[in-house]
Amino acid sequence: MTPKFVLAPDSFKESMSAKEVCGAMEKGIRAVFPTAQIIKVPMADGGEGTMETLIEATQGRKITLNVTGPLPDQEVSASFGLLGDQKTAVIEMAQASGLEKLPPDQRNPLVTTTYGTGQLIKAALDLGVKKIVMALGGSATNDGGAGMAQALGVQLLDANHLPLKLGGGALKSLEKIALATLDPRIKTVEFLIASDVSNPLCGPNGASFVFGPQKGATPQMVTVLDEALAHYANRIQKDCKISVKNQAGAGAAGGLGAGLLAFTPAKMVRGVDLVTGLLALDEKIKTTDFVFTGEGGIDAQTKFGKVPYGVSKIAQQYKKPCFALAGFIGEGSDVLYDEGITAIFGILEKAQSLNEALRSGKENVTRTTRAIASVLKSSTLFPKENAHH
Amino acid sequence: MTPKFVLAPDSFKESMSAKEVCGAMEKGIRAVFPTAQIIKVPMADGGEGTMETLIEATQGRKITLNVTGPLPDQEVSASFGLLGDQKTAVIEMAQASGLEKLPPDQRNPLVTTTYGTGQLIKAALDLGVKKIVMALGGSATNDGGAGMAQALGVQLLDANHLPLKLGGGALKSLEKIALATLDPRIKTVEFLIASDVSNPLCGPNGASFVFGPQKGATPQMVTVLDEALAHYANRIQKDCKISVKNQAGAGAAGGLGAGLLAFTPAKMVRGVDLVTGLLALDEKIKTTDFVFTGEGGIDAQTKFGKVPYGVSKIAQQYKKPCFALAGFIGEGSDVLYDEGITAIFGILEKAQSLNEALRSGKENVTRTTRAIASVLKSSTLFPKENAHH
Repeated sequence: MTPKFVLAPDSFKESMSAKEVCGAMEKGIRAVFPTAQIIKVPMADGGEGTMETLIEATQGRKITLNVTGPLPDQEVSASFGLLGDQKTAVIEMAQASGLEKLPPDQRNPLVTTTYGTGQLIKAALDLGVKKIVMALGGSATNDGGAGMAQALGVQLLDANHLPLKLGGGALKSLEKIALATLDPRIKTVEFLIASDVSNPLCGPNGASFVFGPQKGATPQMVTVLDEALAHYANRIQKDCKISVKNQAGAGAAGGLGAGLLAFTPAKMVRGVDLVTGLLALDEKIKTTDFVFTGEGGIDAQTKFGKVPYGVSKIAQQYKKPCFALAGFIGEGSDVLYDEGITAIFGILEKAQSLNEALRSGKENVTRTTRAIASVLKSSTLFPKENAHH
Repeated sequence: MTPKFVLAPDSFKESMSAKEVCGAMEKGIRAVFPTAQIIKVPMADGGEGTMETLIEATQGRKITLNVTGPLPDQEVSASFGLLGDQKTAVIEMAQASGLEKLPPDQRNPLVTTTYGTGQLIKAALDLGVKKIVMALGGSATNDGGAGMAQALGVQLLDANHLPLKLGGGALKSLEKIALATLDPRIKTVEFLIASDVSNPLCGPNGASFVFGPQKGATPQMVTVLDEALAHYANRIQKDCKISVKNQAGAGAAGGLGAGLLAFTPAKMVRGVDLVTGLLALDEKIKTTDFVFTGEGGIDAQTKFGKVPYGVSKIAQQYKKPCFALAGFIGEGSDVLYDEGITAIFGILEKAQSLNEALRSGKENVTRTTRAIASVLKSSTLFPKENAHH
């Protein structure tokens, strides 16, 4: 009996990387099925850790350079990933333009810019990549991707035909978008945006109102920024013949979604689906017997694009049992039983503090995986319907 | 597909009775196999809760009477169980002679007595029972079962042919044991002692040294009591022709084990085995597909007579998968994988305090049982060795 397993967990935040979870799961399976065929696919959901995970999974490498930070006069060291195929770049916008690059007292979305993100895209193009994957989480900006566009050669001009200053506040002065100088290579690549945000660019559900405050915007600034983005969208409509204003996801990352949709051939993809695609997870699941996934916490939110959900949908497609492990099982996790997850198991060994639980993650994953594998093995004793054909 | 399940958990202390655990498990199974055949066998291990569990399982009843308490001049209300067969009495010695009947400052094993336990036995005989099952946990006494013997008519006489006073201290004056007046009905019943204690009556591993201090004995009293029990054993040897001194388990319940072995036809049985026997668990497991068990905590100690161990050994005998649930999985629980337990699962949903965990016991048992049942169901997809016969 040599069962096949695909292990496709996310990281357990603050406890284990996805790779460590895979290792702990493998140990548990081998205790029951020593000769099992095990394919380990450490996962990510398009958010934090996606770049590292994809680099490692494909034996790619990290390219690091200095670019403009969230503030126009700030220089930061930022990395992007060149995957093992040498043709795909993975860029996390937060590397150049993320909130974590700024101390709280310097957060001001009137002036923060995605210029550095544009520089990363340019650097990827310089390497000759054919595909760019961009993760949008964690932005410090509200500039509609204008800085990114400028870094790629788009001219954003004011009434005096002078280039706009960087930052979301300056967009209110935008009078003309000139595309002639846009880096032509951008049209030649496949461009995928990993985003789980479906907010539009403007209005009460838009970038400024929903995400502005956490980036340092006062209520007054929110209104200014929202009007600036609306004006920006109107100019894009006129000069680029593209309507971004009400497109779902255009409001992601302070409107960087809109900028990418306007100036690049980008398509929005749910983060986890993008990762499973890049890792060819469906090919792996297609030929396995069982799938294991997991994440630090599983709850009703999991079905909005988290790793266990993305993995389970593929498992469901190929009718493979899919078992999910979690340190925290929250309200509403039951709905996942209808979404391809066969069973969800908590991994904790006892009542304990979160810190203790985080420390014993590996042992707990191994123990729980072993127990599940034991159930699988034991059930050979059970008379099956399909055992009688 | 109508799988059969036997549910045989212990209580989860401070959280759920064994019956409640069964109910929570059933709910989890029915979520996956609505038409499953489920036999619920709430268990106990011969310790606390055994009487209640057996009464309920057999639809028996409780008999309550006033008897002598641990102190000779104390009267306590004590109950024993008359099982549904109307022929079996279940007596917990702690009901009459337990440590919990005494406030700490009155604990004095020189004078505490098992007389009340003897009265319970007599009351059971008065009901015409054919079998007496006695649980030995929680004693306040160190009298070698002398009080119990006296209540049943045994004469314990001093050098002046006067009856000994009650209590372990008086045994040093014992000069003659006269059996002629022993209640003759005691020889006509089957008498089983549920005890997991294998300590001998005397010496460094004996009743006085090991258990005396927790019953209030000072170091000096321990020595006095140990010598008194040795003298008692010698008299039993001479007058009853029975050697109890070095018999394993004679030291249980302050030597009540020795007294029962000397004056009744009692046999020592591991607590959980006694319970599984009374509940005919092996007959039920023999014809099932899967067994679930569980206890509040599972660790290396579990294999010394706890419910999950006793249940798993029967499951192993009939080659049935046996799944154990626990709120606490301790050090060394892995050894149970060699003892018939197929898999052990923690039931906790998240890092939390013990109090929180205790409160959410039922939901957690249901969720975890459901997950295991889902694994069982899903594994029909897995190509089995025995699917190809």
